[in-house]
Amino acid sequence: MNDLELAERIRRGERVALARAITLVESSRAEDRARAAVLLDALLPERDDTTRVAISGPPGAGKSTLIEALGQEVMARGQRIAVLAIDPTSSISGGSILGDKHRMTELAANEQAFVRPSPAGSTLGGIARRTREAMILCEAAGFDVVIIETVGVGQSEVTVKDMVDCFTLVLAPGGGDEIQGMKKGIVEIADLVVVNKADGSLEADATRLAHEYMAAMHIGRHEGERERNVLLTSATERRGVDALWDAIDAVEADLAPVRAELRSEQRVRWFQRSLIADLTERITAAIEGSAGFGQRAERVRQGVESPAAAAAAIADQFTPTIEPPRSPDLSR
Amino acid sequence: MNDLELAERIRRGERVALARAITLVESSRAEDRARAAVLLDALLPERDDTTRVAISGPPGAGKSTLIEALGQEVMARGQRIAVLAIDPTSSISGGSILGDKHRMTELAANEQAFVRPSPAGSTLGGIARRTREAMILCEAAGFDVVIIETVGVGQSEVTVKDMVDCFTLVLAPGGGDEIQGMKKGIVEIADLVVVNKADGSLEADATRLAHEYMAAMHIGRHEGERERNVLLTSATERRGVDALWDAIDAVEADLAPVRAELRSEQRVRWFQRSLIADLTERITAAIEGSAGFGQRAERVRQGVESPAAAAAAIADQFTPTIEPPRSPDLSR
Repeated sequence: MNDLELAERIRRGERVALARAITLVESSRAEDRARAAVLLDALLPERDDTTRVAISGPPGAGKSTLIEALGQEVMARGQRIAVLAIDPTSSISGGSILGDKHRMTELAANEQAFVRPSPAGSTLGGIARRTREAMILCEAAGFDVVIIETVGVGQSEVTVKDMVDCFTLVLAPGGGDEIQGMKKGIVEIADLVVVNKADGSLEADATRLAHEYMAAMHIGRHEGERERNVLLTSATERRGVDALWDAIDAVEADLAPVRAELRSEQRVRWFQRSLIADLTERITAAIEGSAGFGQRAERVRQGVESPAAAAAAIADQFTPTIEPPRSPDLSR
Repeated sequence: MNDLELAERIRRGERVALARAITLVESSRAEDRARAAVLLDALLPERDDTTRVAISGPPGAGKSTLIEALGQEVMARGQRIAVLAIDPTSSISGGSILGDKHRMTELAANEQAFVRPSPAGSTLGGIARRTREAMILCEAAGFDVVIIETVGVGQSEVTVKDMVDCFTLVLAPGGGDEIQGMKKGIVEIADLVVVNKADGSLEADATRLAHEYMAAMHIGRHEGERERNVLLTSATERRGVDALWDAIDAVEADLAPVRAELRSEQRVRWFQRSLIADLTERITAAIEGSAGFGQRAERVRQGVESPAAAAAAIADQFTPTIEPPRSPDLSR
């Protein structure tokens, strides 16, 4: 099937076509990247009427269980939901570990939902680009709500925030001072904070933690900015989940008048990131085949030139020239 | 002070000079990168007689407390220790959060130790390049042991592993299935696994977890590979810390016959990473200033071209050619 047929089948909501298209955008082979660009162009314009939510937080905060509960809530409200889980370990093991673990089994079994692990790849640009493209595909296939799950320790949050409307940070009691240390950064970027595991012996700690974040987010608020919410949930007991979805809806409602503009700006930043990622790949390939690189590498191996100086020496030779697009045809 | 004087002062072990030099290598300004290259060349050859250890693990595993305890152990054995803590949140908050928190206060107060947070930067290549260069500077200043602390969820481990002799993964009981899911990747890259918090009510869980990892690492072992150790520690009670340093010493001893070769190979990979990072920065800067980029960006903003297709259209125009160095002068 060619890529335009593939686009048509995605629009009809065929799950097999959607899964195949996501595999295509995840590929880093040059010919697959070219096909992915054709496919994504065929699915233009990107939808502006969907709900895009990031669920981020440290390992062990209960994100998957919470998403499973949120998914039921979303479907009860008559919407279809896609979940893309970024698996940060896939760059080491070479395979998706989250995928092995049969997570979110209830959601995965439901016709109104689509669950897919998304490999992290080896670069931050790579991670998020593929995930964003997968999100666009899911929306084209008729999913109204997309949730991006990401294990967050600060590195990839900015790029993930840049593909969603509502960045939700999920925390749980415990976890030590590093998580507390993330507070300052979180105040900057989270639209919502959820303190999960508000049940059993952790309930009092969770309530205390929620109050701490409420105070921190109130203090960190910029002039004229809306007050951001801190919510308590128990994903395992499915308490607070309806209120959380109401809070996400409220963020979306606030955003509605400017959403098209926000998404336009996000698209431009993704163009820029995609370009950097594409160029990095090409540069890497060009370097590895060149004799000049090999000679410098030998000097570095022998320890007579530092990696930094050898790199600068080659980079200094290099004067990039960018041809302007052939006017008036900008179509490719 | 010029950069050769700075190099001389670092060699004499002056802490102020070392701190200033690390600030220089952390800078991404083009002129600072050029000065950093001169400085690093002036400090050649890189030392091959030092101990380089990564301490990695999820938030809340007790890495900082463990490093504080390890530092005391190292100093008791008559060696000087530098700790570089990669702060993944610095890319969000714009400032180092770890640095705010006065961590490792005992070590930081000791003349035989040097503690420094290392900003994560915005790219994986950037993260680790700066940290590696800071490590080289610490070694030149007479620190025999360098510990790189990194909050690990899989993304940056491969690059960090490539700058150390001994990659140590620190875990603690609890933390949910995501941490369990990391097991497969860990078996591939960790030289040592430490289960920390083997104290109080967590001691039994810690012991069980250590046995699980022992089994997983035994199964994952490649033909002819040495058996890797799993250790139990209580950093807060300072138990198991001497045994952990013995285990790190054993990894170093095993490595001794091939260490110079390993480090030569690592240097070449760092040269390659540095070159890719340098070229990507230059080319990106050139593109972003070009009229062609602006025109494409506008089409993406309007939604008539996808970010992927627009990026590919520009990248397709671009064929980098790396000139060979001018023979016979390879000095720069």
